[in-house]
Amino acid sequence: MTSLTGVGIGRSLVVGPVLRMPDRLPEPATLPSTIGPDGERERVTTALAATAEDIRSRGEKAGGKAQEVLEAQALMAEDPTLRSDIDVRVDNGATADRAVFEAFAGFRDMLLGIGGYMAERATDLDDVSQRVVARLSGVAAPGVPESDTPFVLVARDLAPADTALLDLQKVLAVLTSEGGPTSHTAILAREKSIPAIVGISGILDMADGTVVIADASTGAVTVDPSEEELRRAAGETAARAQRSAVPVGPGALADGTPIPLLANLGSAEGVEGAVAAGAEGVGLFRTEFLFLDAKTAPSVAQQYGHYAKLLRGFPGRKVVVRVLDAGADKPLSFLNDAPEENPALGLRGLRALRATEQILRDQLTALARAAGETDADLWVMAPMVSTVEETRYFVALARELGLKTAGVMVEVPSAALLADRVLAEADFASIGTNDLTQYTLAADRLLGSVASFQDPWHPAVLRLVREVGRAGAALGKPVGICGEAAADPLLAVVLVGLGATTLSMSPSALGDVRAELLQHTREQAVAFADAALTAEDGATARAAVRALLPQHV
Amino acid sequence: MTSLTGVGIGRSLVVGPVLRMPDRLPEPATLPSTIGPDGERERVTTALAATAEDIRSRGEKAGGKAQEVLEAQALMAEDPTLRSDIDVRVDNGATADRAVFEAFAGFRDMLLGIGGYMAERATDLDDVSQRVVARLSGVAAPGVPESDTPFVLVARDLAPADTALLDLQKVLAVLTSEGGPTSHTAILAREKSIPAIVGISGILDMADGTVVIADASTGAVTVDPSEEELRRAAGETAARAQRSAVPVGPGALADGTPIPLLANLGSAEGVEGAVAAGAEGVGLFRTEFLFLDAKTAPSVAQQYGHYAKLLRGFPGRKVVVRVLDAGADKPLSFLNDAPEENPALGLRGLRALRATEQILRDQLTALARAAGETDADLWVMAPMVSTVEETRYFVALARELGLKTAGVMVEVPSAALLADRVLAEADFASIGTNDLTQYTLAADRLLGSVASFQDPWHPAVLRLVREVGRAGAALGKPVGICGEAAADPLLAVVLVGLGATTLSMSPSALGDVRAELLQHTREQAVAFADAALTAEDGATARAAVRALLPQHV
Repeated sequence: MTSLTGVGIGRSLVVGPVLRMPDRLPEPATLPSTIGPDGERERVTTALAATAEDIRSRGEKAGGKAQEVLEAQALMAEDPTLRSDIDVRVDNGATADRAVFEAFAGFRDMLLGIGGYMAERATDLDDVSQRVVARLSGVAAPGVPESDTPFVLVARDLAPADTALLDLQKVLAVLTSEGGPTSHTAILAREKSIPAIVGISGILDMADGTVVIADASTGAVTVDPSEEELRRAAGETAARAQRSAVPVGPGALADGTPIPLLANLGSAEGVEGAVAAGAEGVGLFRTEFLFLDAKTAPSVAQQYGHYAKLLRGFPGRKVVVRVLDAGADKPLSFLNDAPEENPALGLRGLRALRATEQILRDQLTALARAAGETDADLWVMAPMVSTVEETRYFVALARELGLKTAGVMVEVPSAALLADRVLAEADFASIGTNDLTQYTLAADRLLGSVASFQDPWHPAVLRLVREVGRAGAALGKPVGICGEAAADPLLAVVLVGLGATTLSMSPSALGDVRAELLQHTREQAVAFADAALTAEDGATARAAVRALLPQHV
Repeated sequence: MTSLTGVGIGRSLVVGPVLRMPDRLPEPATLPSTIGPDGERERVTTALAATAEDIRSRGEKAGGKAQEVLEAQALMAEDPTLRSDIDVRVDNGATADRAVFEAFAGFRDMLLGIGGYMAERATDLDDVSQRVVARLSGVAAPGVPESDTPFVLVARDLAPADTALLDLQKVLAVLTSEGGPTSHTAILAREKSIPAIVGISGILDMADGTVVIADASTGAVTVDPSEEELRRAAGETAARAQRSAVPVGPGALADGTPIPLLANLGSAEGVEGAVAAGAEGVGLFRTEFLFLDAKTAPSVAQQYGHYAKLLRGFPGRKVVVRVLDAGADKPLSFLNDAPEENPALGLRGLRALRATEQILRDQLTALARAAGETDADLWVMAPMVSTVEETRYFVALARELGLKTAGVMVEVPSAALLADRVLAEADFASIGTNDLTQYTLAADRLLGSVASFQDPWHPAVLRLVREVGRAGAALGKPVGICGEAAADPLLAVVLVGLGATTLSMSPSALGDVRAELLQHTREQAVAFADAALTAEDGATARAAVRALLPQHV
């Protein structure tokens, strides 16, 4: 047997055969056509039509959200502008394969150039291009493998388009060679409660059907396990199931210290599910959904209804609402649609709202009205705050409009470094670990080539969390965590050791985190935090904390 | 008289009449043409030709680099694709003014979308558009004001294209309403040793010819000064000239603590000027010039010649060379030209070099060879280092290739937060304050709408500098500063108080910094640093330090 290691997402241990997600096709060679433009045109026509039909029929089979994505892809295969671009290339002597490849690549680059939402469509365009080229070359289209029995999916990394089509009932776990703990694969895995191990070097060398033991809690993959190893895995699975069978209840450490566990929600639709999973309130309610498809900012009345619905779901409970977080990366024509070279470092979050203050005033007004008519405990917070002055501005405006509790997201390093001054102005802080990691390591969290930097276990990030934790303790102000880091059970304990007083996450992660917290005292959490802080990187921090855990059976 | 305040660049005090850089023209209205497409087409033809001719003749007058910029602009006015875009709009009923405006704006947005170098051309395209529209509307073209006598230039902010044409002999000082201490205006002002005050609210309300006293050392602008104020200004100027008449010599504090003052250089051409200005060595030698216009990476032999020339200019002195700092923001086809959504957070600096290691090996080999044949003390450093592991990688590779001293740039927050671990691996650290500020505040340093965040006086940035200074002191490793912050005389003292052991800057800034250092002891520098660290933002940090200065006469 061989043992491989990556970064685990979740705590489950699974056993099963692997199936590989096919790689991208090689680029078609630049050779002159041997059959002439008319023949090549005919090949193009056939391949595009067949691909559109194939995509559409898969869409009908999938239904729902996946069908929408696939219908959009079918339309790409039928796009007349793309077609005429292909024809020009064919008329200039290119093969159908090469012409399709180049025309789609040109459009992809254009979309990427435009940036933002358009850039996200580039992956879809690539997928269509791959399917058409595969058909022209007579090879299997890359895409999601299908199987009648459950399997462990192995891939370089999962694109959002891939995952829309996965039959998640069949996927026991996802193992990838690339991606970090906040990659798309990792986020999907957490959302769907599928165990995953990402960034495993060597994982792509396995043949389909090879049996593996994948332990997300340690990041270890045992390839071709022995009888003895399989028996031990079964025992471990049973032991864990027993440990995880924690009744739904308030979050707390082993010594009884309460650590309220809250839900991250993107719309009021998720309220029931969060309550069922035992969420003690909402730690991050994202309000972008109210604005994204709108031509103008929604009115106070329109917003009020949504907020009231949310707040009625949590009577007597804390609900933290983040005001609109938009900018050039999530462009809204009525807010900020100036093209920016680096939208992640641009006029986004509170910066953009401040430039168009009426939108912020309307949102806070609608929130105050909803709070007045329900008995949830509404807290509001501003995204992308980087200075003390911005904190003072937001808190003053929230108070002026009748909101009792106003705080800030800490996701910019400067806000963490000046946490003592920021928390002197704000009622609370909530740390967004994804963006905080992105800025602290200066690595775009959505860019594959720098994904390895995106590790919230990195001691530089943890040192910033400690600054906020210390300031919160000194000033008696709550410090929450609402990034994906809180959904990593062991990291959640570390964060508590660094001073986090509440944790907020996807509702599906609540159970695992609740179970893990109950196994450690505050003193242990602080010891974990100390071990992580003195490590040199995310991997050694994780290993240092794991070394402090009681040995698994 | 009125008094206005901004952020001063430099230490000079000047008196003179102001001249305003004209604002952009208003957007031409969307009205149907009254003279029909043929008439509008003729107007377009005339306006484009006249504009191209005018630009070209200004180019001939200016000569040199400015002529190149202007010739490129003339070609934009004659571009056939732009012309056919304009014609389509005219044929659809638009006026010439509106058609020109829209066509140029479309191209501008496309360039911005592509990003990188292309985006920098957008300003030039805008300038041409403004000139054509001005000609069509019969108004004065916006641009650089001309005068036979010296004047104080007032502008919203200076674009690089503006400054290429400025007769700098005539400009006493530059006052802007926008921009921060590292804006283009500020960088230009430092390079050319022109005093500047940026971010002065209300400065645009002044009529041309109004006399002002502008004191860059305090950031104060006195409008319409009284006789008494003018007399005091003259006295102050004389007193400062006396104080600044520091003989060129090694940098040191008032108590004799040596603080070597080094030069930032972008090519070996600058060596003589740096030596003349008293540079004790080179603190930052940028090597991008060797790569930028190349189709393939330059060979070891090609690079060797340049490095040898540089090193021969500083016998027995320290010369710190930064290896190639490129990425998607400075695309090199042989390195990384994948489009990135946020190039500042992408595969740049050491990250990109590592992905194409032979380029790095060749550069280090050429450097080692040049060092072996000259007697300068060569240090090499890597840009954009964010982890301990990257530090170890670079130092090991440099040693393998025969280089004695290898260190890292600290410009990513994580490198500063983990300075204790990074400096355990590296021989030295050099803090790049511009990028460090950009990442710490999460604000693109080249984006106007977030320019106010780009202040290296911000205590969050200073707290990170302190981390590096402390680690350097604990481990006995040198900590240099090579960002623009070192060129701000008072901030330079603060940085020394935070633990910087050398300062590197544009040679033109050496005199002012040398004079300022000589006025303060180490103890005072530490007191300045403490005052700045506990402030809440850049402005209050600066004010807190100024409050500790002995009163000016």
